[in-house]
Amino acid sequence: MWTEYSIMRTIRVRNEQRAGALGQLLVALGNAGALAGEISLIRMDHKHVVRDIVVYVSQQSDLDLVVEAVKATDGSELVEIRDDVLELHQGGKIAVRSRYKIDTLQDLRRVYTPGVAGVCRVIENDASQARRYTAIPHLIAIVTDGTAILGLGDIGPLAGMPVMEGKAALMESLVGLSGMPILLKTKDTKDIIRTVQNIALTFGAIQLEDISAPRCFDIEEALIETLDRPVMHDDQHGTAVVVAAALMNALRKVERSLDEVTVGQIGLGAAGLSIARMMMQESGRPVLGADLDPGATRRLEKAGGRAASLREIMDACDVVVSTTGVPGLIKKAWVRPGQIILALSNPSPEIEPEEALAAGAAFAADGKVVNNVLGFPGILRGAVDSGTPKLTMEMYLAAAHAIADMTPEGDLVPNPLNRAVHRAVARAVARTALDQGLARQDLTGYFEGAPGRS
Amino acid sequence: MWTEYSIMRTIRVRNEQRAGALGQLLVALGNAGALAGEISLIRMDHKHVVRDIVVYVSQQSDLDLVVEAVKATDGSELVEIRDDVLELHQGGKIAVRSRYKIDTLQDLRRVYTPGVAGVCRVIENDASQARRYTAIPHLIAIVTDGTAILGLGDIGPLAGMPVMEGKAALMESLVGLSGMPILLKTKDTKDIIRTVQNIALTFGAIQLEDISAPRCFDIEEALIETLDRPVMHDDQHGTAVVVAAALMNALRKVERSLDEVTVGQIGLGAAGLSIARMMMQESGRPVLGADLDPGATRRLEKAGGRAASLREIMDACDVVVSTTGVPGLIKKAWVRPGQIILALSNPSPEIEPEEALAAGAAFAADGKVVNNVLGFPGILRGAVDSGTPKLTMEMYLAAAHAIADMTPEGDLVPNPLNRAVHRAVARAVARTALDQGLARQDLTGYFEGAPGRS
Repeated sequence: MWTEYSIMRTIRVRNEQRAGALGQLLVALGNAGALAGEISLIRMDHKHVVRDIVVYVSQQSDLDLVVEAVKATDGSELVEIRDDVLELHQGGKIAVRSRYKIDTLQDLRRVYTPGVAGVCRVIENDASQARRYTAIPHLIAIVTDGTAILGLGDIGPLAGMPVMEGKAALMESLVGLSGMPILLKTKDTKDIIRTVQNIALTFGAIQLEDISAPRCFDIEEALIETLDRPVMHDDQHGTAVVVAAALMNALRKVERSLDEVTVGQIGLGAAGLSIARMMMQESGRPVLGADLDPGATRRLEKAGGRAASLREIMDACDVVVSTTGVPGLIKKAWVRPGQIILALSNPSPEIEPEEALAAGAAFAADGKVVNNVLGFPGILRGAVDSGTPKLTMEMYLAAAHAIADMTPEGDLVPNPLNRAVHRAVARAVARTALDQGLARQDLTGYFEGAPGRS
Repeated sequence: MWTEYSIMRTIRVRNEQRAGALGQLLVALGNAGALAGEISLIRMDHKHVVRDIVVYVSQQSDLDLVVEAVKATDGSELVEIRDDVLELHQGGKIAVRSRYKIDTLQDLRRVYTPGVAGVCRVIENDASQARRYTAIPHLIAIVTDGTAILGLGDIGPLAGMPVMEGKAALMESLVGLSGMPILLKTKDTKDIIRTVQNIALTFGAIQLEDISAPRCFDIEEALIETLDRPVMHDDQHGTAVVVAAALMNALRKVERSLDEVTVGQIGLGAAGLSIARMMMQESGRPVLGADLDPGATRRLEKAGGRAASLREIMDACDVVVSTTGVPGLIKKAWVRPGQIILALSNPSPEIEPEEALAAGAAFAADGKVVNNVLGFPGILRGAVDSGTPKLTMEMYLAAAHAIADMTPEGDLVPNPLNRAVHRAVARAVARTALDQGLARQDLTGYFEGAPGRS
């Protein structure tokens, strides 16, 4: 469901006012391959009911089937079909706002000249005061070159802007940070590094986003080394944190522990490599990894893992995570009884969970359950709140544990819109920064009030 | 007043409830060298009145005099002295906000995945749709390297951040644009150009800010040449637009016309050169210019002006504008009867207006009246609304005329907080873009409803 039904439309339908009419229509829509979302009542009179129904389909041509389905349903009439998502994107999803009204000359003199000069001097005399008197600590650069946007690939930074704005909107909405997309014209590794270094001063942290592997590794590494503020490639660590949380919960479900299982990672791209590293850090045991690219397996070995073939992994591992982008890669016959299988490629997994379970897997899930919105907002919030100059593997693992701990019984991960989850993640990251001696901010009172599951 | 009384404090004073007590206190404050700003009533009982009084002083040591003045005033008691401006800067002045609430799974699916994928595809297929479906057109980069911040000089980009945030806050408040500070670590001309080129895609326009001359000329020129969107160095053209407007009004006051006067420009830095160029464009007559730097006079000559000495300018010109930063540079004896003199250096002008008038000048003003807040918001708004790929001299002059036309009788420039002025400037710029064949946006209805003075 996560990206499979990626086309979203709102259909306005007028029905006869008759019990069962909506049910009949929904059955017809379902038969046409459409998933129903939100249904809202628009108007009702003595004869008719008008409703807006959000439908999801997997391809453009399915929309014709939806139209036909409504027409063919007795007593139903299609009023219109709208692309609400496109409409709401008009003017973009984010705006930079003044935190103060500027209505009087007095206001102007406070936020601008001459008042501002005194604030400039305070920072000139003590650069650390910029943390207090500017927006920098809550400004997060969301940097992309557009080479690996969602599942869409190298569509360029401009076409990727709606995704970056979405991340910025989520940052504000979930944790109160100010995310600012930065679209890069260049794809050159050195040029990207240099450009981000040149503007990094503006931001409390840098989120690298949808930059393709293997360039993303070099870019992130160089920026972490040279900048004095947190840099996180979300596609690596943000995703890995959420996968790690899901894996922790999956192990709980089957009553096993990470210390006593062998983990295999199939696909060592941005997410895969980071998942493997996180698992090794947590368990102290090497992860077996497979990838068609020898550069990718070399990176795994450098990180302490072991290169293996796909079949070796399926034979030897208790836990198998796959992030290859190849649908159906894992054959049913290869599944070992009792295995935990997270086949995470979207829109189609390496093996369908039902198939894996039928073949004897103890637990199986696909990528629909792993939403990276669970990770980055809280991780960045905790990072800037603590003032840590960098994010460490320990912090990422603490974030994963926080997400796992906040998961309601029976689920694999919590609801990404539960603000308490993000607060818990932020606290876990800040706590780890404190424990590692990396916190540069006073965190008195920061950890008060324990978050609750919900 | 513009930057002279640059230190701003709020004093809370308890007075006896007695007619004349406030007056007495204000006289004492005035004698101590403090300018009074806003006065608010905090509390009143049968015996006392508590007020907050905003005071401006020109140097830190004057604050001690203020404290003494209150203490020495009969029946007055100083409760506290606060730096409200510094306090309001806590957390910065701007924030990036989501334009939509994200409270339900449905919201999430609209602003982020999977809904966003369709919007990405629309832009991938037709890049011009980014104007409609992203925030880019209203995002304005406010780029500085911190080398010429206000009158403070090369204090670095970090210490300049409060100024950049102030500009961003004004952009939103006055014309609804989303200004985003970009602080540059580098001062190298080529490196700055390259960095801005690499990130320009993110923004509808680029405002260069507080970058010192002569680098600012090369940087702006290279960016205008290579980018397909408006680039404006505010210290040059924003300031020049406001000065030009003031000059037009000064000429009106003395009933003269720009075509029949000789203009002299003393000081050919960022603002000075742009003022000279604007005047030449408007009048078709060469401007005489003086500067100690031969590079500066060469630039003027290249633009069609004539190098001259300070004395030659004072002797030959009907209108003299000075932007040298040298207080008292122009001697009273040099002033010719009937001259118009705008001595614009802050905090202290090249000649005090009273002195110039006493020496026979027909009109004289200093830099306190020229507030660049009058220019950049409307100019940028008009630029992005019209979709022009660049700002032209004609557009700047149209902006200057709009400001001049919106000035109330008797004033030199209008109130910078009058939103109608900014709308008029935006329309003038957009109208010129249309006339010059540079408008790439549909402007139907844009010019409806004439702005009125207020």
